[in-house]
Amino acid sequence: MAISGGQKPAQRPARAQWLDSGNSITQQFMAIGGRADIVSLAGGLPAAELYPVEAIARASERALARWGSVALEYGSVEGLPALRAAIAERISASAGRRFGPENVLLTTGAMQGLDLLGKALIDPGDLIVNQFPTYLGALDAWRPRQPRYERLDWSGEGPGFEAGLRQAKFVYAVPNYSNPTGVLVSQARRAALLDKVLEAGTWLVEDDPYLPLQLDGAAGPSILALHGERHPTGAYDGPVIYLGTLSKSLVPGLRVGWVVAEAGMIATLALAKQSTDISSSMFTQAVALELIESGFEAEHIPRIVAAYRERRDALCAAAAQHLSEWFSWEVPPGGMFVWMRAKSAEIDTNALYACALEEKVAFVPSSVFDPDGRLTDAMRVNFTRSSPEVITEGVRRLERAVQRYLASKAGRAA
Amino acid sequence: MAISGGQKPAQRPARAQWLDSGNSITQQFMAIGGRADIVSLAGGLPAAELYPVEAIARASERALARWGSVALEYGSVEGLPALRAAIAERISASAGRRFGPENVLLTTGAMQGLDLLGKALIDPGDLIVNQFPTYLGALDAWRPRQPRYERLDWSGEGPGFEAGLRQAKFVYAVPNYSNPTGVLVSQARRAALLDKVLEAGTWLVEDDPYLPLQLDGAAGPSILALHGERHPTGAYDGPVIYLGTLSKSLVPGLRVGWVVAEAGMIATLALAKQSTDISSSMFTQAVALELIESGFEAEHIPRIVAAYRERRDALCAAAAQHLSEWFSWEVPPGGMFVWMRAKSAEIDTNALYACALEEKVAFVPSSVFDPDGRLTDAMRVNFTRSSPEVITEGVRRLERAVQRYLASKAGRAA
Repeated sequence: MAISGGQKPAQRPARAQWLDSGNSITQQFMAIGGRADIVSLAGGLPAAELYPVEAIARASERALARWGSVALEYGSVEGLPALRAAIAERISASAGRRFGPENVLLTTGAMQGLDLLGKALIDPGDLIVNQFPTYLGALDAWRPRQPRYERLDWSGEGPGFEAGLRQAKFVYAVPNYSNPTGVLVSQARRAALLDKVLEAGTWLVEDDPYLPLQLDGAAGPSILALHGERHPTGAYDGPVIYLGTLSKSLVPGLRVGWVVAEAGMIATLALAKQSTDISSSMFTQAVALELIESGFEAEHIPRIVAAYRERRDALCAAAAQHLSEWFSWEVPPGGMFVWMRAKSAEIDTNALYACALEEKVAFVPSSVFDPDGRLTDAMRVNFTRSSPEVITEGVRRLERAVQRYLASKAGRAA
Repeated sequence: MAISGGQKPAQRPARAQWLDSGNSITQQFMAIGGRADIVSLAGGLPAAELYPVEAIARASERALARWGSVALEYGSVEGLPALRAAIAERISASAGRRFGPENVLLTTGAMQGLDLLGKALIDPGDLIVNQFPTYLGALDAWRPRQPRYERLDWSGEGPGFEAGLRQAKFVYAVPNYSNPTGVLVSQARRAALLDKVLEAGTWLVEDDPYLPLQLDGAAGPSILALHGERHPTGAYDGPVIYLGTLSKSLVPGLRVGWVVAEAGMIATLALAKQSTDISSSMFTQAVALELIESGFEAEHIPRIVAAYRERRDALCAAAAQHLSEWFSWEVPPGGMFVWMRAKSAEIDTNALYACALEEKVAFVPSSVFDPDGRLTDAMRVNFTRSSPEVITEGVRRLERAVQRYLASKAGRAA
């Protein structure tokens, strides 16, 4: 067929190379988002029916009455000064030392904090020492910068771990109810990691989105707080770069997150943010400020924690009944996920995932949490998004998916 | 001095290399943002006193009543479906062909569109052919990806221009009231560029933030529309990647912008956005939808256009009185800026800038709009942010700044 008047070339310039370096299961897993017939235990979404729509409507009204056109400006790159101060206040209260607004950068959710860290710190080939398995979103955020990864060894005893730290641009850890494993890292291990980071002279990125979701007892001090307690006076100049968000305690849709770090790092991240989106919305930041200052957030958290505890328990009870033949797990003391490890090497959760879709249930296969995509013996199961009844139905479907998967394997083997 | 307990290393790992590749005058120019004693003719900010605070308060109320928790979710990466459809509708109406929601990605302002284009298309060393002088924000957005630049030759007659196009990842152009020059590119030149882009088989990024600010007559069809008219049926598969925003017609603080392109490019940009901030705020998108659907935006634009026309005329009148000895300019038919070129090579606007700050007035020196930082004979002067009286006072201060600058040069020469 003739090309008409040279109008349509065979191919325009290719997209950037990093876009073809991802894990194909990730794409597949993203694609099911919209299917209403599927019970999704896959996402990391809060319970939408608990979103405080009325409180946010009232906060929006108050925010515009209070700030007027200021809430509708580009605003400063670092964020609405009053909200920066409020976050500094909150962090100071829990960290045994003073942080000021100069230690806070407001971001479009904590996810943007990860993107900005990648931009500001990573040159191609740089080393990141990261908690393993690790948050898919962090791997995604840093892929355009093409780093290398080594595994964070919380025991601190692995060979070469300290040498790795000395070469690393930063360490990435989610000590509170990690995504995907739900693990709460002990205070002793946090302190030991802090010591090693200080010795190695590198940065430590502490990602703490799940802090509000303390289902069984307190999470204990953050690594930022552990360092703060050792240096209670003067300007903060420690190695911890701490990420927080309102997405889990209130709603994701305001897209309000923050980075807390020494002032020079905040200035560097602000430079990266300036060239990313000029500024986040001052309007949603002003709404967030109302929700924090009025005490609404603090009052709301116990409501969602109670609901999530019930849902976690429903998930674990159903799994004990339907999945314990093939999977084992620990009951997570907080967060949003149960991490189920296959008891037998014969289960590959990438392959199981296809059977799960046929049974109209979704989870997240473990391979997406591995920079190399090789971890295929576990799955992440969410308990926050759906009611106990829906979760229980999802687990029943998972049981059928495992049976279908094993039967098809046996059929192929026969 | 002894290092106490190995706690504070001399230096932690360095920031990414691109951060040290910028133009130092840019930093200096950013730094004055907050100084109340300075008349700033520097920024690209709308008139805050014209922000429709009341209309936005009402739209927020309606948006939450209409969408409830949907407006408070992460939402889909591509944006609120109803707003994608509304933008597709708007673009279709002006482009002589149909665009669908699949052709629209909503972004955190048009600036994020530039960031995502950089992520999605640029590998280090890739060539961009860009309008010269060009928008500082675009250069900033792409710096982390480290591209090379060649100048867009609107005459199309320069040697090697077509060869450059064939090697380029994309062309970047701001045909309507360009930042910084205010130039409105003729329809003939737009069509000629489109032909060459089609021939070369590259992408064409058409950045159109100033479209609503048509101060003298109509802007005429966009390049997207020129291409659309040639291919009125079928799915859009042209080379134009078009960027728009509500920041100039309504307010910047909602941070609502959009990219319109063929569906495959939108999917690629959405992949990049997923790993950047998961999604923009559904809440501010729902508010924007109310403001568009209710006809408020269309009704508001004539009010700001009238005010900006008066301010532009005030700036040009004051400049004719106080600056015409040293600078020449064309009255821009739209947008936010007057581009003033020095009549004599003895004026270097980087150096003039320091004198301007001493006289408590700011502009943007031309060097920041040059990827190589070498363009030092012009300045960008904004007329939208301040009242005619303040603008006139700013121009008087500029006159004194030029006198001070020339006197100090003469002093050094003597």
